[in-house]
Amino acid sequence: MKKQPPCHVWRCALTGVTLLLAACSPPQRSDAEPVTAAVNAVWTRYSSSLNAGDLDSWLSLWTDDGVQLPPGELPVVGKDQLRARNKGVLDKFTVNLSIATDEVGVAGDWAFARGMYTATLTPKEGGPAIPINGKYITILKRQADGSWKIHRDIFNSNVPSR
Amino acid sequence: MKKQPPCHVWRCALTGVTLLLAACSPPQRSDAEPVTAAVNAVWTRYSSSLNAGDLDSWLSLWTDDGVQLPPGELPVVGKDQLRARNKGVLDKFTVNLSIATDEVGVAGDWAFARGMYTATLTPKEGGPAIPINGKYITILKRQADGSWKIHRDIFNSNVPSR
Repeated sequence: MKKQPPCHVWRCALTGVTLLLAACSPPQRSDAEPVTAAVNAVWTRYSSSLNAGDLDSWLSLWTDDGVQLPPGELPVVGKDQLRARNKGVLDKFTVNLSIATDEVGVAGDWAFARGMYTATLTPKEGGPAIPINGKYITILKRQADGSWKIHRDIFNSNVPSR
Repeated sequence: MKKQPPCHVWRCALTGVTLLLAACSPPQRSDAEPVTAAVNAVWTRYSSSLNAGDLDSWLSLWTDDGVQLPPGELPVVGKDQLRARNKGVLDKFTVNLSIATDEVGVAGDWAFARGMYTATLTPKEGGPAIPINGKYITILKRQADGSWKIHRDIFNSNVPSR
């Protein structure tokens, strides 16, 4: 007679598979809604802090080794460079920025966001305001406390330079 | 006397945990090396196909719903727009592009790449060659066959527009 494995071996295998399915289902689906909300909250604070000229609030949205890739410049690497480069912007201009999210993709503790932004930069020393209209891709990283921070950010204009 | 669970229940739980650890360990670490090699292979073909004027080979590197975000233009969405926009470039210019990877991040079936590129665009109708020097972030997606395709791509110049 062919020997069958004892009943509990099947139960065990089934439990293992059930646990696997529960724990390893793609995070993209289950996480999409709360992560999109978290990313939108990051953009709300990103624009409100720049619009208020609050550099520290804006910097707190970044990871310590965050990298910003602005058009027409070399990469801005880490908190010190992020502070210096963007202090330069806020010293020269009053900013009026708004950001729209077109999509958010989530994979575990990483997310990417893609979207559009419009801004007006008004020179503090006078002169005409500069309208800006562009698009971006951002890589965000989930932190130990569950919050999301900006890790990599790149953007460019929607209109040809004049 | 306190009742203990039968021995096979512990075996079962242990098997489940072992399976979970084996299947759910962070893909970032184990995958980093082969995925970086795969991304570099994508960039080699990306530049060699553009440099050869081979639009079909270049297009095959993209997902069907790929989105390209070039500076000074609106988003280029899906294979038809990718073909039309980049045919326009190859019709006008002989391209000499090379791409360097600064980092690759992996999370499951998603990866991002960040790096630099230099290119020379030589007008086919004559005139001076245009030097380009820029940076990029790209989101890549692992395909069912294990290959990686470009899903989102954005880039901008390292030098101010003149």
